[in-house]
Amino acid sequence: MTTTFPNPKKYTFTQQTEGWQDIATKTQAELKAKIPKEWQLSDSILASKQHNVIPLFRTCGLLSDRELGITDAEDCTVILQKIHSQEWSAYEVAVAFCKRAAIAQQLINPLTDIDFEGGMQRAKELDEYLASTGKLVGPLHGLPISFKDLTDVKNMKVTMGFSAYAELFSKEDAVVVEALRNAGAIVYCKTTMPLVGMMLETASRLFGRTLNAHNTRLSCGGSSGGEGALNGCNGAPIGIATDIGGSIRAPAAFNGLYGIRPTSRRFSYKGNSLEYTGQGSILSTIGPVGRSLRDIELICKVLNAAEPWLYDPAVMAKKWEPVDVPKKATIGVMYWDEVVMPHPPVQRGLSTAVEKLKAAGHEVIEVKPYRQKYAWDLSYKLYYQAGAKYYYDTMAQTGEVAFPAGAKMIEPARQVEDIHELIRLNKEQRQYQIDYLAHWNATASQTSTGKPIDALLMPSFGSASYPHDYLPWWGYQTVWNLLDYPTFILPVTRAETSDVKDTAYKPVNELDQENYDIYDPEVFENAPVCLQLVGRSMYEEQLLSVAFAVDQAMKA
Amino acid sequence: MTTTFPNPKKYTFTQQTEGWQDIATKTQAELKAKIPKEWQLSDSILASKQHNVIPLFRTCGLLSDRELGITDAEDCTVILQKIHSQEWSAYEVAVAFCKRAAIAQQLINPLTDIDFEGGMQRAKELDEYLASTGKLVGPLHGLPISFKDLTDVKNMKVTMGFSAYAELFSKEDAVVVEALRNAGAIVYCKTTMPLVGMMLETASRLFGRTLNAHNTRLSCGGSSGGEGALNGCNGAPIGIATDIGGSIRAPAAFNGLYGIRPTSRRFSYKGNSLEYTGQGSILSTIGPVGRSLRDIELICKVLNAAEPWLYDPAVMAKKWEPVDVPKKATIGVMYWDEVVMPHPPVQRGLSTAVEKLKAAGHEVIEVKPYRQKYAWDLSYKLYYQAGAKYYYDTMAQTGEVAFPAGAKMIEPARQVEDIHELIRLNKEQRQYQIDYLAHWNATASQTSTGKPIDALLMPSFGSASYPHDYLPWWGYQTVWNLLDYPTFILPVTRAETSDVKDTAYKPVNELDQENYDIYDPEVFENAPVCLQLVGRSMYEEQLLSVAFAVDQAMKA
Repeated sequence: MTTTFPNPKKYTFTQQTEGWQDIATKTQAELKAKIPKEWQLSDSILASKQHNVIPLFRTCGLLSDRELGITDAEDCTVILQKIHSQEWSAYEVAVAFCKRAAIAQQLINPLTDIDFEGGMQRAKELDEYLASTGKLVGPLHGLPISFKDLTDVKNMKVTMGFSAYAELFSKEDAVVVEALRNAGAIVYCKTTMPLVGMMLETASRLFGRTLNAHNTRLSCGGSSGGEGALNGCNGAPIGIATDIGGSIRAPAAFNGLYGIRPTSRRFSYKGNSLEYTGQGSILSTIGPVGRSLRDIELICKVLNAAEPWLYDPAVMAKKWEPVDVPKKATIGVMYWDEVVMPHPPVQRGLSTAVEKLKAAGHEVIEVKPYRQKYAWDLSYKLYYQAGAKYYYDTMAQTGEVAFPAGAKMIEPARQVEDIHELIRLNKEQRQYQIDYLAHWNATASQTSTGKPIDALLMPSFGSASYPHDYLPWWGYQTVWNLLDYPTFILPVTRAETSDVKDTAYKPVNELDQENYDIYDPEVFENAPVCLQLVGRSMYEEQLLSVAFAVDQAMKA
Repeated sequence: MTTTFPNPKKYTFTQQTEGWQDIATKTQAELKAKIPKEWQLSDSILASKQHNVIPLFRTCGLLSDRELGITDAEDCTVILQKIHSQEWSAYEVAVAFCKRAAIAQQLINPLTDIDFEGGMQRAKELDEYLASTGKLVGPLHGLPISFKDLTDVKNMKVTMGFSAYAELFSKEDAVVVEALRNAGAIVYCKTTMPLVGMMLETASRLFGRTLNAHNTRLSCGGSSGGEGALNGCNGAPIGIATDIGGSIRAPAAFNGLYGIRPTSRRFSYKGNSLEYTGQGSILSTIGPVGRSLRDIELICKVLNAAEPWLYDPAVMAKKWEPVDVPKKATIGVMYWDEVVMPHPPVQRGLSTAVEKLKAAGHEVIEVKPYRQKYAWDLSYKLYYQAGAKYYYDTMAQTGEVAFPAGAKMIEPARQVEDIHELIRLNKEQRQYQIDYLAHWNATASQTSTGKPIDALLMPSFGSASYPHDYLPWWGYQTVWNLLDYPTFILPVTRAETSDVKDTAYKPVNELDQENYDIYDPEVFENAPVCLQLVGRSMYEEQLLSVAFAVDQAMKA
């Protein structure tokens, strides 16, 4: 595959002729210029930054109490109630979130493109529509939503983190963007991702590094790191992310958010990334990250109600059918994957959840992992079946070099040997899917109902985030991409300095040793801890019902 | 890919050491020996065979009037009503179909394996169960069903037509077989397919040629040719076939049957063929061929009710949701694909259908094809991405040589050049899917409703069947595999000697010329003519509702 010019039907593109440093300087300056002067933080505020920058939103003085009330609202459901009852105008909500995103940009750098004016203008129109007709445009009337860099938003930038694509603009909206706009959503910014989307942290030569607002020494996750970081500090009420190997879930988990990685063909991926990658073994997915499960459900319902299968041939034609929250769910718990032992805060989060679930009357049984290391090795080959030459070629256009975790992840020459190796790998994937389903069904022998578990609760990662430039074990997440099961991310606690290292633990392999060594309770303090809840393929509604049960138990 | 030994967990296998002729002689003799002596046709009956062998079932003297009444019943729905009301016993129904299949085997050679005794034994058990409990095992209680060679039926043969696999037996049932058995179905025989499943006629060195009972000069179609031939002469009340490029539809169409090629992941393909092929671009599908649309619906409902997604990770978790038959449907008609002009009987069938649909109050608009030749060229590359070395190697084990149409279809050395070519082809497929969906949606501009067509009616093939050893144009069918749209086959008429050749027609290309030249009204006389009705991907229920409307209009 040679470097392909982005499809001119879909993008306007200006070829870059300078080196990446010059492009980055210019791009970042232009982005900064889109933030009104009066929303810029003073040098003294910037100098006062601690590892946890969240308090600065209150103390910086730029947000009024009303704006703080809007942006710190419980969730979109509350925000929408207040807009729809005209207690808040869509305009003031849009201004508040634009302002908060502008502050976030100065503190943690989550944005790639800004359209505050367009967003505020649309909010005004929506207010006028409501005032004059008494009607809402749709269920999301007035809700600002952030989008990831790679999702096409008309007239906004798509870069994939490449400085070579610094001046590349979408000519049309992705299917999800159109659906959300039609339901009344407001677009006002786009967010960072690592080059290639294949690191689980977020840094690019073009935009620099995006930080975790809860603890800037730690990664905000990736590849939808800008979504995680921006939503994690309430710079957006909700955002849309994508996931082919954890890219919704790592940012959601590292920033204390709810999120869903849906089954791959449940929602439309049309209009994401520069090109469809052409590998059909593991498909990328799209889904929301946000503040509450009911918000996640709301977005899923709106995306489904738009009947995306009428416009994107890859989407499964399947209506969203709500399922009642179970009084007694049967939940499997997988304490670890037998590859990497989760850090103490994650262990505590998971064992607390198990206790609370039992106390709430649910049945919890332990489920053993099934060949999780094998699954990762297989996934890795399938991800990079076509190699990374295109990525390295695109970097080379402007003299970029890969970040350490990116370079470690993808060697330029890597690819499957030939079509027969791919066929063999595809067969292995199919067999693993068959075997894992049998493994899941076999839990029936452990439950009091005689039926298999309703969902599986497990770590979302081997840790609550990681230091920068570190490539962690991501098998906790990739296995569900390989299998194509939906998973939810649910916040449960935060890392504390009292989560001390288990000095008696003997790591079982090198990956485990690395993960063990990197943990330091002082460094991880305040990092959000989230868990992962997994369900059967295409069972989003059923899984959501169990997720509600878990969330309610955690809050009881 | 080297020749792989069939998975010993799933199959028992005896390696063949003789040449294919000896294996074939032995295999065919063993098969014949499974037909009771008293069910064997006399030499005089065999000598009296005409091109249309259907009358022989009545005249051969082996079937009683009651057995003729059973096997010539309108459809499964009627048969099941009579079994369930105990007017007929399951046993006598099983005996009647075993006998009729035995006669069919002697006339047109559709079988690869026989288990008449097992089928009759199961029927007895079902009768006893009903007598003693007053209950039915399930909705298919007592219904005999035929299965294609490649579908795993416990303890029965799977050969794919290879003489090398003459002694290969399944250890377990495919998911569909299990679901149908659980619903009360009876298994009594398996049916022929061409070597490799990649001819649209049915012949193998191992079993010889399967004929079309309506006109033995013509092909019974392929690859599910045994299913088409057996069901086409009422040797089974219904059968299960598979389709990756027309293999359900050609046999259904050539034998005057109803059939459905469902969307690829709607039903379970687990337990079909020796191995999952490992190519994910165009997936094979499984579905029934039978005597009526309501029978097709019945099987679809039973297969869906078994929730196959719980056992096969590839199946979409989507309930079957019946749709009311529309009083006024909007139906597109595609008269030809601009590659090959259908023969006169097909043209007549289609124009008659259009007239009857209009007379019944439906709206019919003409829809132009969209790059159908391109679609075929792309499909062909995707089908054979891994080449055919495996097939030729397996043939070579016993010294088999390919049939003319097979040899023309697949060259041994054919395969995609490398992974990058495959990636490029997969992207082309995705783009074609997107473009075709837009083409479909654009029909909204032609309809009185302002909505796109509900379904598309078109030829099922460029002809009603073909002479033997001829490789026809199969673009009328493969395009729907490439796009993954469901299609129904509906019988509408038969070829008549009055369907004369249009001597004024000037073929537009070589394929068209070939197709034109091969037509001879005398040769094609009595060949069933079927049409193809196509719907949106995953819209089986909606499409079925329109199929009912078309069928009712045709019968009005």
